[in-house]
Amino acid sequence: MSPIQDLTIETIDSIHTKEWLRAYQRVRAATDAICEPLHKEDYMVQSMPDVSPPKWHIAHVSWFFEAFILKPFHPSYQTLDPAYDYLFNSYYETHGTPFPRPERGMISRPTVDDVYRYRAHINQAMEELLNDPPQEHLQEILHRLELGLPHEQQHQELLFMDIKHILAQNPLCPVYRGDLVSAPAHEVGELGWHAYPAGVRQIGHDANDSRFAYDNEMGRHRQFIEAFQIADRPVTNGEFLTFMQAGGYDKPDYWLSDGWATVKAEGWKAPLYWVERDGVWHHYTLSGLVPVDVNAPVCHVSFYEADAYAQWAGARLPTEAEWEAVAQHVPLHGNFVEQGHLQPVAAAPGGSSEGPRQMFGDVWEWTGSAYRPYPGFRKLPGSLGEYNGKFMSGQMVLRGGCCATPEDHIRTTYRNFFPPHARCAFSGFRLAKES
Amino acid sequence: MSPIQDLTIETIDSIHTKEWLRAYQRVRAATDAICEPLHKEDYMVQSMPDVSPPKWHIAHVSWFFEAFILKPFHPSYQTLDPAYDYLFNSYYETHGTPFPRPERGMISRPTVDDVYRYRAHINQAMEELLNDPPQEHLQEILHRLELGLPHEQQHQELLFMDIKHILAQNPLCPVYRGDLVSAPAHEVGELGWHAYPAGVRQIGHDANDSRFAYDNEMGRHRQFIEAFQIADRPVTNGEFLTFMQAGGYDKPDYWLSDGWATVKAEGWKAPLYWVERDGVWHHYTLSGLVPVDVNAPVCHVSFYEADAYAQWAGARLPTEAEWEAVAQHVPLHGNFVEQGHLQPVAAAPGGSSEGPRQMFGDVWEWTGSAYRPYPGFRKLPGSLGEYNGKFMSGQMVLRGGCCATPEDHIRTTYRNFFPPHARCAFSGFRLAKES
Amino acid sequence: MSPIQDLTIETIDSIHTKEWLRAYQRVRAATDAICEPLHKEDYMVQSMPDVSPPKWHIAHVSWFFEAFILKPFHPSYQTLDPAYDYLFNSYYETHGTPFPRPERGMISRPTVDDVYRYRAHINQAMEELLNDPPQEHLQEILHRLELGLPHEQQHQELLFMDIKHILAQNPLCPVYRGDLVSAPAHEVGELGWHAYPAGVRQIGHDANDSRFAYDNEMGRHRQFIEAFQIADRPVTNGEFLTFMQAGGYDKPDYWLSDGWATVKAEGWKAPLYWVERDGVWHHYTLSGLVPVDVNAPVCHVSFYEADAYAQWAGARLPTEAEWEAVAQHVPLHGNFVEQGHLQPVAAAPGGSSEGPRQMFGDVWEWTGSAYRPYPGFRKLPGSLGEYNGKFMSGQMVLRGGCCATPEDHIRTTYRNFFPPHARCAFSGFRLAKES
Amino acid sequence: MSPIQDLTIETIDSIHTKEWLRAYQRVRAATDAICEPLHKEDYMVQSMPDVSPPKWHIAHVSWFFEAFILKPFHPSYQTLDPAYDYLFNSYYETHGTPFPRPERGMISRPTVDDVYRYRAHINQAMEELLNDPPQEHLQEILHRLELGLPHEQQHQELLFMDIKHILAQNPLCPVYRGDLVSAPAHEVGELGWHAYPAGVRQIGHDANDSRFAYDNEMGRHRQFIEAFQIADRPVTNGEFLTFMQAGGYDKPDYWLSDGWATVKAEGWKAPLYWVERDGVWHHYTLSGLVPVDVNAPVCHVSFYEADAYAQWAGARLPTEAEWEAVAQHVPLHGNFVEQGHLQPVAAAPGGSSEGPRQMFGDVWEWTGSAYRPYPGFRKLPGSLGEYNGKFMSGQMVLRGGCCATPEDHIRTTYRNFFPPHARCAFSGFRLAKES
Repeated sequence: MSPIQDLTIETIDSIHTKEWLRAYQRVRAATDAICEPLHKEDYMVQSMPDVSPPKWHIAHVSWFFEAFILKPFHPSYQTLDPAYDYLFNSYYETHGTPFPRPERGMISRPTVDDVYRYRAHINQAMEELLNDPPQEHLQEILHRLELGLPHEQQHQELLFMDIKHILAQNPLCPVYRGDLVSAPAHEVGELGWHAYPAGVRQIGHDANDSRFAYDNEMGRHRQFIEAFQIADRPVTNGEFLTFMQAGGYDKPDYWLSDGWATVKAEGWKAPLYWVERDGVWHHYTLSGLVPVDVNAPVCHVSFYEADAYAQWAGARLPTEAEWEAVAQHVPLHGNFVEQGHLQPVAAAPGGSSEGPRQMFGDVWEWTGSAYRPYPGFRKLPGSLGEYNGKFMSGQMVLRGGCCATPEDHIRTTYRNFFPPHARCAFSGFRLAKES
Repeated sequence: MSPIQDLTIETIDSIHTKEWLRAYQRVRAATDAICEPLHKEDYMVQSMPDVSPPKWHIAHVSWFFEAFILKPFHPSYQTLDPAYDYLFNSYYETHGTPFPRPERGMISRPTVDDVYRYRAHINQAMEELLNDPPQEHLQEILHRLELGLPHEQQHQELLFMDIKHILAQNPLCPVYRGDLVSAPAHEVGELGWHAYPAGVRQIGHDANDSRFAYDNEMGRHRQFIEAFQIADRPVTNGEFLTFMQAGGYDKPDYWLSDGWATVKAEGWKAPLYWVERDGVWHHYTLSGLVPVDVNAPVCHVSFYEADAYAQWAGARLPTEAEWEAVAQHVPLHGNFVEQGHLQPVAAAPGGSSEGPRQMFGDVWEWTGSAYRPYPGFRKLPGSLGEYNGKFMSGQMVLRGGCCATPEDHIRTTYRNFFPPHARCAFSGFRLAKES
Repeated sequence: MSPIQDLTIETIDSIHTKEWLRAYQRVRAATDAICEPLHKEDYMVQSMPDVSPPKWHIAHVSWFFEAFILKPFHPSYQTLDPAYDYLFNSYYETHGTPFPRPERGMISRPTVDDVYRYRAHINQAMEELLNDPPQEHLQEILHRLELGLPHEQQHQELLFMDIKHILAQNPLCPVYRGDLVSAPAHEVGELGWHAYPAGVRQIGHDANDSRFAYDNEMGRHRQFIEAFQIADRPVTNGEFLTFMQAGGYDKPDYWLSDGWATVKAEGWKAPLYWVERDGVWHHYTLSGLVPVDVNAPVCHVSFYEADAYAQWAGARLPTEAEWEAVAQHVPLHGNFVEQGHLQPVAAAPGGSSEGPRQMFGDVWEWTGSAYRPYPGFRKLPGSLGEYNGKFMSGQMVLRGGCCATPEDHIRTTYRNFFPPHARCAFSGFRLAKES
Repeated sequence: MSPIQDLTIETIDSIHTKEWLRAYQRVRAATDAICEPLHKEDYMVQSMPDVSPPKWHIAHVSWFFEAFILKPFHPSYQTLDPAYDYLFNSYYETHGTPFPRPERGMISRPTVDDVYRYRAHINQAMEELLNDPPQEHLQEILHRLELGLPHEQQHQELLFMDIKHILAQNPLCPVYRGDLVSAPAHEVGELGWHAYPAGVRQIGHDANDSRFAYDNEMGRHRQFIEAFQIADRPVTNGEFLTFMQAGGYDKPDYWLSDGWATVKAEGWKAPLYWVERDGVWHHYTLSGLVPVDVNAPVCHVSFYEADAYAQWAGARLPTEAEWEAVAQHVPLHGNFVEQGHLQPVAAAPGGSSEGPRQMFGDVWEWTGSAYRPYPGFRKLPGSLGEYNGKFMSGQMVLRGGCCATPEDHIRTTYRNFFPPHARCAFSGFRLAKES
């Protein structure tokens, strides 16, 4: 069911290596499937500096295997074009000067066909390597593959985010896929709360757990958490509409100073992708422009909006330690990409003795915690050390995955992060408060 | 040979209308030919706000016929998609809010195939209309066609400019066409001068001349021109290199104040597309990156650079009246798009009793004249009045056409214009001085 | 009455040199008088990059005499502080790197008192020099003085402009001087026109005229002017209000493209300094905030606004050649700084056989001519060559002086210039049209 | 010795209220003393948007008492000018629209003398009020005074920071005060470490402690701190020079991504105010430009620079919980404003059994903690709620006070905060590492 999580590199033998090859093939195929509905023109658009053209994504994830596995370890690897190392390096400054990010949409050659040829070239070389690996490097190869696969999964989610942003620029509101699974029609009901006592809790990935985790999750450590309550589900579109109708975007009272400045500078009046048509709020989704579902979790809000809503509601956002402490007792299921909605949906009715609903999937949940290193944090050696650590400034932690995340990509300890103004991710939030 | 110039609308009959239809077909086919070497990905790039994606150009020139001819005059015209009127209006503010220019590269749908379908749709409707025109509107239809054809020719030149700029962003220096005609290997020799006496001269398009001219050329009028001399040919790459080696880009002495500020802000060290490789100056051309030909006219320089060179050389740029007075006696031949160089080339040796060499073709020549209305200027009625008149501020006049201009697009009275910092056009210059 | 204009350097003797000294003292005293109502705090403000703090102005005009006369020619001149040469150089790049213009307001030391000490130091040295000049340099000294005095007069007008802009930032609307002369209460009546036939006219400063003129006026030359008419007086506030009420600022039809972009970017709804209070248009003047006088010429409008009004009115702006040809027959009188209004006032009733009213004084009149060199233009040698020539790009010519100009500073041939978006000068306009 | 800290509002009687009045007078006099060396011109400069002109500071701190104490509680208070409420409101959006911060330097009136009159007016009214307070409001008055006094002390430190930044713009490097106390000539020696075991610690201001603390310190709560070590003293200029010489500013390896982008965008090569003269590093201080003291703590570095240094040194910054846990055992003494250095100085030799040296005073120490609310954080009611809470985004915590902080302003629990790129404060840092 969830082979990437289950794979470890404790036992290194040929059977095991074959499983890694199959995992590689499965992840690569998932990327291809995401791009299948695209026209070549869609592959080219960079709708803002933070968005990358889909063509760049599919080249970059291939480059990752080339730069960190094939070139160092494949005994006879031949690169297809030496310029690709420059064009498709994302941000590894210690690997060489990356091509400027805001100009990724300027590069029409290599074409989409060229990039798929590059992709096939990498796949063939990876298969060669994993079918006949140099034994003295096999452990390091698998270590890097263990990073390369979730890396590509992250770009799968980024592809959904960026495709959505790209198509949303178009006044024609094009449909990405017309065959997505419809949302269930649940009534979510009143917000409930779960209470937790004060105490020392452990969070972070355990060094004795052989399964993969990013460096930023490493260092299981103790945190003292004062008694708190957490909401039974995320805030819904309907609740957020009430905030909007109460003047939420018009009054500075609820907002962080930077948030209020952003509201005014950007003219925010609603979450990203929302638009009013004939008095009814719609939002752009990967199925096109549809009316907002008041029972579904609000999505595409920034940390600033989440925090302002919480202020208005007399609550706050949970810290990441609180969130993880709660999530440790909740089964890792939810509305992930495999559900085929590509949109958050209303929580199923009825609470749970296990804990709050929708902790996993649907929307990434903004926490009140700035993204900073755990005690004893050590970044990976070499250029891969740039993977996570250098972003530990100016960003907030989000937890739990979303409707565009592969289910086997997520862990209870998983730390996502975005700047507080970002709204492109499928990001929502859940309230917390003191007991 | 040059049917667009020869066509007039004095006689309106069915034979004549057929000639217009053939001219329409010929101009449209020329646009298609320019785009033939492009990949779909090339069609999508907007390398800076002033550049439009080729896809937009080929849609916009079609829209022009739709908006100004088909919708008003075709009795049964059906639009393909009502959104196109918004997407492909360039700058006609009185026609409706145009789609924001800097975002033209954000729109992946309609695709390139869609846009060619739109193009075919317009062609078919235009043929229907011209094969069976409503007689009461025929004169107005031909008047607008008489504007629509040079309009598309202007976009043909813009396509060459924009394709060059787009491909030049790519560190791979892609070749647009590998089969362009090579430049002749002439030695241009020392610069010679032609002298003209003082006197009242007439410039501008004569109202009695039934051939087409833009509104901005209209109003033949008198100007008193003091005695002057004009150079026998444009300034060459070799001469411009001497200026560079003399510190031309390093000393404020020669520069207009705005020009010097631009040099510093943009870090200009050479003309656009020039790059030094192993001590040799190369420049990017539509044939790829090649060494600079010291005998060819310098190209892709701004008015500021032209003016600074002239200051350094103890000369000045000619006014547009001087230029036109000289050009009236020079045959309209030159290195136009039909020559197949798509690059300025060295002047043929030997001067001429007729006047200076290379007045037409090769490079647009910056004049010292700001682009302002002629006496009695009247803009066209309706939205077409925005065609030229509203740009008569902050721009300088260029004359004579270039290696990317169709020969039958140019007249002695033709006024091109660009802001003084612009370098994307195939723009060079010729010196003048007092007698 | 008008000694600066009457002074020449044809005869160089000690009596004559004494007159120059008296002229120097008179001009310098006028600068002091302008600053007399200022607080030290007013001297410090740089309300936008194009505005200089008054402290800077009064230091800079002193620096001009130091750099170009005292240091080269005073046999024993001692500078007060060597840093001043850097701090108070305006834009003479060939003299050394000028202190960055936008940071002039950052420099609190030297203090205002220090700068007045510098001023006194320069005055004393200039008096020493002119009382006992080195005969071999006297001609050059007087030549430079002949430039230095109008230079300081230009800064006197700039001081009025900048003081107005500085105080206008203040929501308290401070009064610069409470004792300015009130405007007369004339009714200007309907607009009349004066017609002129076509012909060759001479404009520019005659080389045989020994009186001073700037280099940019030099080169009396012939221009052919087609028949035209010019308005009897400038456009009034009342007429401009009609344009505003007709939606002048809301419709793109009348505007140059750059002008319309500026209107939208800046949110222009009225001339600079205008503000609506309880339904009545007021404007900030050096006497404070007062209701707009419908009979006075409209002021603080840009070229864009002048041109848009003319388009709306079915007219155009005169060229500078037309303006000068008309002005040659009009006596050089008007509402200059000596009248004590510091604000344009309504034209006196009744036309004139001599020509249009208010050609001189009241408001600088935007012409339709870009600021470009006259035939045979030669800039001054050395750093003084930067005085005028390097600004001959991107600017439009204004003529006739204004209510803040010293009367003896103006000539019929005088060419002022500003960018088309500028509104800080006392700038208005007069209509012209074809005959 | 430290009356502001010792004053509480537990006992409210007339003797006690008199003490408050004396504290008020003492704080206000300290502000006056800071400005005593300034010229009026110095009071006017806003050297960047984050810097306020000193005139604005001295008006704003007076406005604070007027807006929050005199207007609500003085029975007969008359405002001096109603416009001041708009001009001198800093950022209290719920109090009314504040005058735009970046334009504070545009306002020359009220003059410095006017503002001192305003200051005297407020002082007189405050004395009246405290000499004869309305008993029913006395507790609230004292509560607000208890906030108003440290508020003015914060602006005292801001005045030093802003005066330094203002004078540093001036190429003349003016001296603020020539009589500052010279630094001792200590050799600080090798860096030592203090180790602390893991455990639950309490931090934050205790609700039972009647002494004043800001809302952001409130909520004494438990934190689990893993075992760690902390440096015996801050990093010195000499150590930082070693980092610079090792290419610290040239290699991306050590930097956070945002930090590296800032280094490149701003061209950072050294701490703020450092300049190399003839191969020797100097820095601008309030005593003028002096050579850097290698034994003194490095100062005017951003969080990015502190973090990069720590990465390079194989260490990290302490969290604020670690810092506070250590500081709880260190006497609150140090190089504060009362020492008269106005510059950090070398640590006295010899360590201490009590704990690390220089925890208080000298430099604010960047911690590795983002500035976020403590558990149960409640902002103050009304507009005063904007005092601290709305800045809890995008900023890092600094601890311990500096050489420009009044000693009785600081507490062990005191949380200062600045954005990670800020360098204007007297900010340095101390290393920590795992045990």
